[in-house]
Amino acid sequence: MQIITTSAMMQQKAAELKRQGKTIGYVPTMGYLHEGHLKLVKNSVGENDITVISIFVNPLQFGPNEDLEAYPRDPKRDTELAREAGVDVIFMPDAADMYPNELSMNIEVTKRADVLCGRSRPGHFNGVATVLIKLFNIILPDRVYFGSKDAQQTAIVEGLIADFNFPIKLIAVETAREADGLAKSSRNVYLLNNERQQAPAIYRSLLKAEKIIKDGESDPAVITQLVKEYIEKNTDGVIDYVEVLSYPQLSYQIRLEGKVIIAIAVKFSKARLIDNLIITVNKEVTKCSVQ
Amino acid sequence: MQIITTSAMMQQKAAELKRQGKTIGYVPTMGYLHEGHLKLVKNSVGENDITVISIFVNPLQFGPNEDLEAYPRDPKRDTELAREAGVDVIFMPDAADMYPNELSMNIEVTKRADVLCGRSRPGHFNGVATVLIKLFNIILPDRVYFGSKDAQQTAIVEGLIADFNFPIKLIAVETAREADGLAKSSRNVYLLNNERQQAPAIYRSLLKAEKIIKDGESDPAVITQLVKEYIEKNTDGVIDYVEVLSYPQLSYQIRLEGKVIIAIAVKFSKARLIDNLIITVNKEVTKCSVQ
Repeated sequence: MQIITTSAMMQQKAAELKRQGKTIGYVPTMGYLHEGHLKLVKNSVGENDITVISIFVNPLQFGPNEDLEAYPRDPKRDTELAREAGVDVIFMPDAADMYPNELSMNIEVTKRADVLCGRSRPGHFNGVATVLIKLFNIILPDRVYFGSKDAQQTAIVEGLIADFNFPIKLIAVETAREADGLAKSSRNVYLLNNERQQAPAIYRSLLKAEKIIKDGESDPAVITQLVKEYIEKNTDGVIDYVEVLSYPQLSYQIRLEGKVIIAIAVKFSKARLIDNLIITVNKEVTKCSVQ
Repeated sequence: MQIITTSAMMQQKAAELKRQGKTIGYVPTMGYLHEGHLKLVKNSVGENDITVISIFVNPLQFGPNEDLEAYPRDPKRDTELAREAGVDVIFMPDAADMYPNELSMNIEVTKRADVLCGRSRPGHFNGVATVLIKLFNIILPDRVYFGSKDAQQTAIVEGLIADFNFPIKLIAVETAREADGLAKSSRNVYLLNNERQQAPAIYRSLLKAEKIIKDGESDPAVITQLVKEYIEKNTDGVIDYVEVLSYPQLSYQIRLEGKVIIAIAVKFSKARLIDNLIITVNKEVTKCSVQ
């Protein structure tokens, strides 16, 4: 495994690999790797000749009130985990390498950014889009891997790739879950004991929503209400949002149709958890239930 | 020579060429090719295995009061000229291929855009930057060719390539000139006879400015004044702007230092002409003249 710390050397390496006809799979991260990342790596290793991960805590995607400095870092442990997982190249630049000069242009994400987690993080996805354009040009991947858990980010990156014709295929990897259904996350360790017991109710509420949609319910208000009530009844968490939107457009619908996402964020005492399910609404069943 | 009309096929062709280890030179155009374009092509043919030109009248870079429909088009003649010049691939997409959906993000050029020609065309360079990101990803060039005559565009594209780490080298090709010094342009044919006689005064004013800078003058106001007076005395044209700026930053300086551009736009009765000269200010000479 090779560790590369400058964008110039990484780009040179990537160009060399492409000349050799190798396919490159890429997993962008901010480090502090957990099982979710490693699942993405595993998928990439299975589908590409070379797997590159980047570890870069991108200052551009942190708001003025968000603590960039406090973001957890453990490059040594990350390096070990990456090596064990079969990563070929780690790209670990510093901010001075990635942003040597003030940028001469801004990216403003105008769609899909002001719902779900984006609503409380204005400008966040502008920073994500900017750094990804840079990283795509440095790493030259054939495939890029994102977790379905970060559904909004994945949808926005789909938009970025399509808008700008990047020759890259986005692979959305299914959310890794504990045996009881709780989505895996580095934040789960911050849950109190009783909160950890309650937290799988989030995933159960998604399954309940899926069931009533499959049974013909197509009113997002009814589904949202059901999910909220279930979470409030079964946890001490405070709901940040429950939203049912079209996917990947992330727009509101009056009647659900096509691919939809049910997305949830719940605040516990020391951890905010997110989860979601993407469902294709079955028109036939809906019709039957109306008859 | 191959003519390709869809971005999917062009991207596939470019990827195939890269796999074969070919270098790609790229000349972006809006068609209606003239000698300036052909000079760019000639440079590309000499430096790359494959030369691609794009012909695309990009709606995104036209303002609401600018006539996109009236932009001159002659694909048949363009095709012949390109073939004779040694172009290997013409990429000629339509707007529906380049913009199949509303974009989900905007590019806003925040530096270098509000001076020179950009001042009277708000949003113009946002459209230029957007389409170039797309075209770079579709054509995958090693080198891209721009004319020094469009110095502001060239400077902004330098910014774009650096900001987003595109693995592309920008080559600024020297302005092609008539025997009397007038910069070649498709617009020269719109000059009245007496205007055509006068127009070389624009270039002569640039040479005069260059001379006084080399002789030690470093006050942009003095240089601007000299150029304006010379053009007003020797032509019937109306000066749109005369600016002396740092290059490629395009920012105002109190005392000229380093690389600078003297840029001019003059309106004649039916044609607006632009020209410029980029000069490196010689510090030694400046010092001598002060002593």
